[in-house]
Amino acid sequence: MAKISPISGFPEFLPAQRIVEQHVLDTVRQIFELHGFASLETRSVEPLEQLLRKGEIDKEVYVLRRLHAADDEVIRPADQLGLHFDLTVPLARYVLQNAGHLDFPLRRYQIQKVWRGERPQEGRYREFTQADIDIVGRDTLAFHHEVEVALVMAEVFAALPIPDAVIKVNNRKLAEGFFRGAGATDPDAALRALDKLDKIGPERVAALLTDEAGLDATGAQLCLQLAQISGIDESLGVRVHALGVVHPLLSQGLDELLAVVAGANARRPGAVVADLKIARGLDYYTGTVFETELVGYESLGSICSGGRYDALASDGRVTFPGVGISLGVSRLLVPLLAEGRLVASRAVPTCVLVAVSEESERRASEAVADALRAQGINTEVAPSAAKFGKQIRHADRRGIPYVWFVSADGSEHSVKDIRSGDQVAADPNAWNPPSGDLRPAVTMEPTREVGLTTAPTAAPTAGQDPEESTQ
Amino acid sequence: MAKISPISGFPEFLPAQRIVEQHVLDTVRQIFELHGFASLETRSVEPLEQLLRKGEIDKEVYVLRRLHAADDEVIRPADQLGLHFDLTVPLARYVLQNAGHLDFPLRRYQIQKVWRGERPQEGRYREFTQADIDIVGRDTLAFHHEVEVALVMAEVFAALPIPDAVIKVNNRKLAEGFFRGAGATDPDAALRALDKLDKIGPERVAALLTDEAGLDATGAQLCLQLAQISGIDESLGVRVHALGVVHPLLSQGLDELLAVVAGANARRPGAVVADLKIARGLDYYTGTVFETELVGYESLGSICSGGRYDALASDGRVTFPGVGISLGVSRLLVPLLAEGRLVASRAVPTCVLVAVSEESERRASEAVADALRAQGINTEVAPSAAKFGKQIRHADRRGIPYVWFVSADGSEHSVKDIRSGDQVAADPNAWNPPSGDLRPAVTMEPTREVGLTTAPTAAPTAGQDPEESTQ
Repeated sequence: MAKISPISGFPEFLPAQRIVEQHVLDTVRQIFELHGFASLETRSVEPLEQLLRKGEIDKEVYVLRRLHAADDEVIRPADQLGLHFDLTVPLARYVLQNAGHLDFPLRRYQIQKVWRGERPQEGRYREFTQADIDIVGRDTLAFHHEVEVALVMAEVFAALPIPDAVIKVNNRKLAEGFFRGAGATDPDAALRALDKLDKIGPERVAALLTDEAGLDATGAQLCLQLAQISGIDESLGVRVHALGVVHPLLSQGLDELLAVVAGANARRPGAVVADLKIARGLDYYTGTVFETELVGYESLGSICSGGRYDALASDGRVTFPGVGISLGVSRLLVPLLAEGRLVASRAVPTCVLVAVSEESERRASEAVADALRAQGINTEVAPSAAKFGKQIRHADRRGIPYVWFVSADGSEHSVKDIRSGDQVAADPNAWNPPSGDLRPAVTMEPTREVGLTTAPTAAPTAGQDPEESTQ
Repeated sequence: MAKISPISGFPEFLPAQRIVEQHVLDTVRQIFELHGFASLETRSVEPLEQLLRKGEIDKEVYVLRRLHAADDEVIRPADQLGLHFDLTVPLARYVLQNAGHLDFPLRRYQIQKVWRGERPQEGRYREFTQADIDIVGRDTLAFHHEVEVALVMAEVFAALPIPDAVIKVNNRKLAEGFFRGAGATDPDAALRALDKLDKIGPERVAALLTDEAGLDATGAQLCLQLAQISGIDESLGVRVHALGVVHPLLSQGLDELLAVVAGANARRPGAVVADLKIARGLDYYTGTVFETELVGYESLGSICSGGRYDALASDGRVTFPGVGISLGVSRLLVPLLAEGRLVASRAVPTCVLVAVSEESERRASEAVADALRAQGINTEVAPSAAKFGKQIRHADRRGIPYVWFVSADGSEHSVKDIRSGDQVAADPNAWNPPSGDLRPAVTMEPTREVGLTTAPTAAPTAGQDPEESTQ
């Protein structure tokens, strides 16, 4: 059989890398639940017309087809199913479908895979994991939840073994009001232009602002000056006002922005920073918007984004406003794992390997394992009664810290810490490892590993790709 | 907007039902890890040719197509991607792809969604969750692992709040040897015929055995008698031998079957029962096979199946034998949830709702919440400073057991158990709920609920289906 290659954009992890991912997902879930968010899972598919609502036909969607659909089966586009590309569209549909069974405000988290039918490209995922929290109101939703979701994510970042993350906040009303006040006839075009500032530089953005947003040269310069403003203190307002642009939406948006920054930093200093150049591409945001930069990994783009949407969903009678923020788990983890920066202390959950002295005495070892498991210690029994040296190597290769030895009659026990070589007598009904050894530990290496020897199988590669190789 | 209907075969849960599912998945994971199984996740897609290997073109697969694939893009069948329909085919591919980075025997668990491109049909899922354990060797794999995987699942069943589950075991070698010894020319046809025994009855099976498996009438009757044999003691062997059929494979398979039954019941009495009529449809099993019946829910079919495969994967040079068993989480849960048999004590993780006396004093309530969270207590703050009666109803509707009251200056605290009405003074840095209240409890109601008032949204329905409604 030919060598099997990964499929570009569908990252997979080796067992030790998966342990890192589990640690991250467990931490995320624990913090979400500490704040009273309830888990939801939605099906992986939505009707294609739901996925493409608001006419966003540029969405990269994977469409499903039953292999055994009849050849002459004609499916209207409206009846087709596609894999969801985010967790927000499914949430909106779920809320409308089940509104009568839900209590509002609904605090839900959702940790699931999403898919994008992208062409294969370095750093682009076609399958990846997101972890979202949203708070959804019925008719109304209090402003303080906009501070809250940012603080929950700041708590997640503080708890994870990752580089520093900076949540940046802006406000759509502020931006739109400023653009209008500065003379823009198409404020959305101005937003799109400024979103490209880091990529194409101020001169080309100024050209876009005059050519596409209807601003004159002075107005364009004012917008570029606005985009320079960032910070965490009250002077933000002074600096915006100093630009001399006036518009009711600008005032309202600025008040909201200052309230988010002040509210968040009062509870967690440094948690969020205002940055008036961030925009977010998705058009359903209506107020606060968030992006997050991982320090030292700015080229990854935003690893955690979200914002306020006044109408997440509506059934024509009732409107459901929401605020949410979404952590790109794969976007965050795949690069850190590929370069060996996040490491697990072992590749298995196992804390103790019980050695087997002879195959006929396996029952004695199994009894030890049962006793240890009854105390919550992850334990496996050696697969064969090989020489003890080989059984110890079996543990060592996997990073299992302890090997347990038992006499054939089950009366004599000792446990060896194979890292130190220390071996002591022990009672399987009473022994406990140091708490740090009970589960695999996950740590961040201080610097990136250069010249990694094993292939970074987790990273998307531009290699052989089944879907694309014929092109 | 028109009422949104579920999509047949894609079950979804309400928040309280999801809490039941989380409890089940957490328990399953905990027990798998206690036994030293390491988590793996594979991508959701495989090349279509991998999914259809061994020429099983009857597989119901969902094929993916990029929405924006060029109209003239011709994709060879071998380059197409499909969603995986089980977790065994992906495991085999993963093992071959990463063999150089894995340690054998590999003990892995995998809890993921799988998809089948079925026509919509009552009780058929098109998306569902499976929880698999497999032990994969390199070149060899010891027999004792066949006992082990059954015992791990028996421990899962014992730990879950579900009706009794009976793991039934048979052996492919026993069956094939018996069929050959009884004169079958096509033992696979005999296996397929006997697999239909419960569905079509002995007479029609006898006809199939003679028409398709090459048996004479006497041989067919012997096979039907074999299929009657079940039990857990040594008399199994006597009853098989009494039929007078002799074949080397039969002897080997019978020895293995007796060893599995004796080994499992020695460690967990009643864990597995031999049942010589079970067959398992999948053709890669080569020895032990498992099926599991949920008592009182036999019509669900097997909720947990697996077996031994001498060649899970092979690269032509090295062969990887395996033994595995797969729990159909959705198959088990969806019916129990739909009829209200499994219930969570609340619909949210939250243990305490901190009341807000006035919107201007929200910070005092947030400080309480932070203190409680620091002790691991899931806590949320009331969304608005409504009348206390309304805030208590907010907790009550979600099943949150405790409401916390704090004076504006943060100096006076009391906590009310809203089930009993008891209210006591408390210190947010020291208070702890009874351990049973810390997390939602999941319990099984003694009997099925008749005339459930809420719609069983979780159950697949034969209702409107986007993919099928045009047919």
